[in-house]
Amino acid sequence: MKVQIRQLATTAPDFEAEFHRALHWAAETDHAIEQRVAEILADVRGRGDAAVLDYTNRFDALGATSVAALELTQTELRAALEQITPAQRQALEAAARRVRAYHERQLEACGRSWSYHDDDGTLLGQKVTPLDRVGIYVPGGKAAYPSSVLMNAIPAQVAGVGEIVMVVPTPRGEKNALVLAAAAVAGVHRAFTIGGAQAVAALAYGTATVPKVDKITGPGNAYVASAKKHVFGTVGIDMIAGPSEILVLADGSTPPDWVAMDLFSQAEHDELAQSILLCPDAGYLERVRAEIDRLLPEMPRRDVIRASLEGRGALIHTRSMEEACEISNRIAPEHLEVSSRDPHRWEPLLRHAGAIFLGAYTSESLGDYCAGPNHVLPTSGTARFSSPLGVYDFQKRSSLIEVSPTGAQALGPIAAELAYGEGLQAHARAAEMRLSDDTPEGA
Amino acid sequence: MKVQIRQLATTAPDFEAEFHRALHWAAETDHAIEQRVAEILADVRGRGDAAVLDYTNRFDALGATSVAALELTQTELRAALEQITPAQRQALEAAARRVRAYHERQLEACGRSWSYHDDDGTLLGQKVTPLDRVGIYVPGGKAAYPSSVLMNAIPAQVAGVGEIVMVVPTPRGEKNALVLAAAAVAGVHRAFTIGGAQAVAALAYGTATVPKVDKITGPGNAYVASAKKHVFGTVGIDMIAGPSEILVLADGSTPPDWVAMDLFSQAEHDELAQSILLCPDAGYLERVRAEIDRLLPEMPRRDVIRASLEGRGALIHTRSMEEACEISNRIAPEHLEVSSRDPHRWEPLLRHAGAIFLGAYTSESLGDYCAGPNHVLPTSGTARFSSPLGVYDFQKRSSLIEVSPTGAQALGPIAAELAYGEGLQAHARAAEMRLSDDTPEGA
Repeated sequence: MKVQIRQLATTAPDFEAEFHRALHWAAETDHAIEQRVAEILADVRGRGDAAVLDYTNRFDALGATSVAALELTQTELRAALEQITPAQRQALEAAARRVRAYHERQLEACGRSWSYHDDDGTLLGQKVTPLDRVGIYVPGGKAAYPSSVLMNAIPAQVAGVGEIVMVVPTPRGEKNALVLAAAAVAGVHRAFTIGGAQAVAALAYGTATVPKVDKITGPGNAYVASAKKHVFGTVGIDMIAGPSEILVLADGSTPPDWVAMDLFSQAEHDELAQSILLCPDAGYLERVRAEIDRLLPEMPRRDVIRASLEGRGALIHTRSMEEACEISNRIAPEHLEVSSRDPHRWEPLLRHAGAIFLGAYTSESLGDYCAGPNHVLPTSGTARFSSPLGVYDFQKRSSLIEVSPTGAQALGPIAAELAYGEGLQAHARAAEMRLSDDTPEGA
Repeated sequence: MKVQIRQLATTAPDFEAEFHRALHWAAETDHAIEQRVAEILADVRGRGDAAVLDYTNRFDALGATSVAALELTQTELRAALEQITPAQRQALEAAARRVRAYHERQLEACGRSWSYHDDDGTLLGQKVTPLDRVGIYVPGGKAAYPSSVLMNAIPAQVAGVGEIVMVVPTPRGEKNALVLAAAAVAGVHRAFTIGGAQAVAALAYGTATVPKVDKITGPGNAYVASAKKHVFGTVGIDMIAGPSEILVLADGSTPPDWVAMDLFSQAEHDELAQSILLCPDAGYLERVRAEIDRLLPEMPRRDVIRASLEGRGALIHTRSMEEACEISNRIAPEHLEVSSRDPHRWEPLLRHAGAIFLGAYTSESLGDYCAGPNHVLPTSGTARFSSPLGVYDFQKRSSLIEVSPTGAQALGPIAAELAYGEGLQAHARAAEMRLSDDTPEGA
């Protein structure tokens, strides 16, 4: 049965309405989940380890007698690294090396302290320091992604975070060896087999056994997302992720089966994932459509792929590549492939995207695993105002100011004038006291 | 009547308990406010301008007939600049110049795109772009701060934001000329005299008259804070500010009246503001205490200052400056003055602070208005994981990846191995299709 994927054309009179329908995705707030999460958070805050243990045993069907018994030792993590196949280990280590190299460049490009002196000898600058301790949430169960361990832990490690604490639920006690091995490769310091809102609460508030962290990153289900949003402010969080999306801008020069498979690679994540192809060449769109039908039956996850493509996918015929770029900017996609012979012609036109994959050889999947940049990216159009997870998420900045005695003479009258204007006289007086000739303006 | 400010000593047996009591401040969630804000947001989302107009007329006691009538023209903003005193105008312009110069350094230090090629000819990098449109919330009424207009709008302007939209409530129609003049100086593009949750909703969702923005920054009351937290995800937000705080580390070399006035300058903000002095010299602490009593009667805002110092202030006698630095790290203060003859000896020990003011001449108030760095800083210990408002808050990053044909041969097998390990076969096939010798690993 052919895949019934939505086909649109920007020249069609109903394009705007159809386009809006295709894009629409609202993160509905589930009040039952919100309420349950608030209860779990309050319980962990109040009862600490005892509450974490209760929820973990109940939700993950375990019979642990203490939270300490849920901690994975470094020996266990290293043992997992020995247990996986040599090919898996080599791939993990190669990916980790490349991810580390990229994030080290990122640290050099924008993660260092800086300062300067102005003409009055006043020092101004910004001190950049790593966070003391962070928590990394790693989903367990059906969607256990070792690559996410690398993508969360390595930027933290490169930033110089003092302690990286991983939490990963192990429903029915099933541990994923690749996830544990990735933790060993990525330099995770401590790891607990706990998950859900109770794990987020333990990290945010601390318990006798689980250390309180300064920030929590990493993806999770609706309970985890709700818990992260709740504890935001007590700790930092990275972002609340929606369904994953890919947008492919094609000029028709890439083998159509490559593009079809790239659309699949997004669609296979889950039924809400979104794959959209924009192209000014109608014949090429038809060839990709034919490849979708040809390739689908051989995919193990064909049911998910079909549901995703039929529910949220779209092939859009545009007037031009320029128009395709404009539509891309309206969508602000998480993943943006510029599958063109001349990607650098289009890249400057693209203002909003989590990651931009240039040229036919740059499949999103290479970026997902090992090109180097982070695969934790802003979804649901939030690339309009947010950024990939990076070293900067594991650092914070402090302004540095050292006003020289000369500088105080120049700055004092300005500050005092503005402070009096705001009715803050102590601010004004504090500035005026530093003037050599201290005569209050109002005197 | 003497100021009854809390006096602690780290050598006292009950220090930890007393210290904890002094610091404790919990941002209580007010469910009545939350509920009311949710209703206002939903109403503005549904009815647009009509709802904004209703709430504005009701809450601000206005009689406007349209939201368009609530827009301030550029002519009005420029007229305000003419209307204030020449001294005020010069101070505003001088402060704006210095704030702009600092943020331009910040842009140079960490706000530029970068890229490199690896050994395989693969291009990796990060593209940094400004946000298209941002909203700046400026409080009106009793606490109208023109300096906040500069501190929010100038980093956005330096980042290259396309459109800066200011909202400021004008209860009973009273416009603050300094705020309007600051908007003119700071390059605000559009301004509306609306406030509260209804203004946040208008900016987040857009109405027929108020443009939808990508991010909302700026301080506000409990309704505004709640509304910002609600719309987080639909748009970006800066941070949720708690009460303002200052921590002074003193070695006893600064005139004690300067330090007393610096403590006042924080305390005068409001009764919840917190001023703490740490010093290893008991005699110096006593001299500062005496200056507090001597100077207080001459302060116009003495009632607020007294309430703040008695409710939340503390003078803490430490064993050493080193210990004072450790305590400072536990507090992670918004403003941190190192009032020492040798501030550079202590600065490296200070890990968490919004802004660090070095040396006796660097009063916090000089930094608040015109030294250059931003005065929007993380409060309530959030300096452990967050940073001053900056140019980076008005930019976002997109990863750039262009895998060369050679690079695809190196990366493909790594990505495929990891993708098969995660059960994501389309990811693996997309990588394998780019191999010159395309033989699926599983085949």
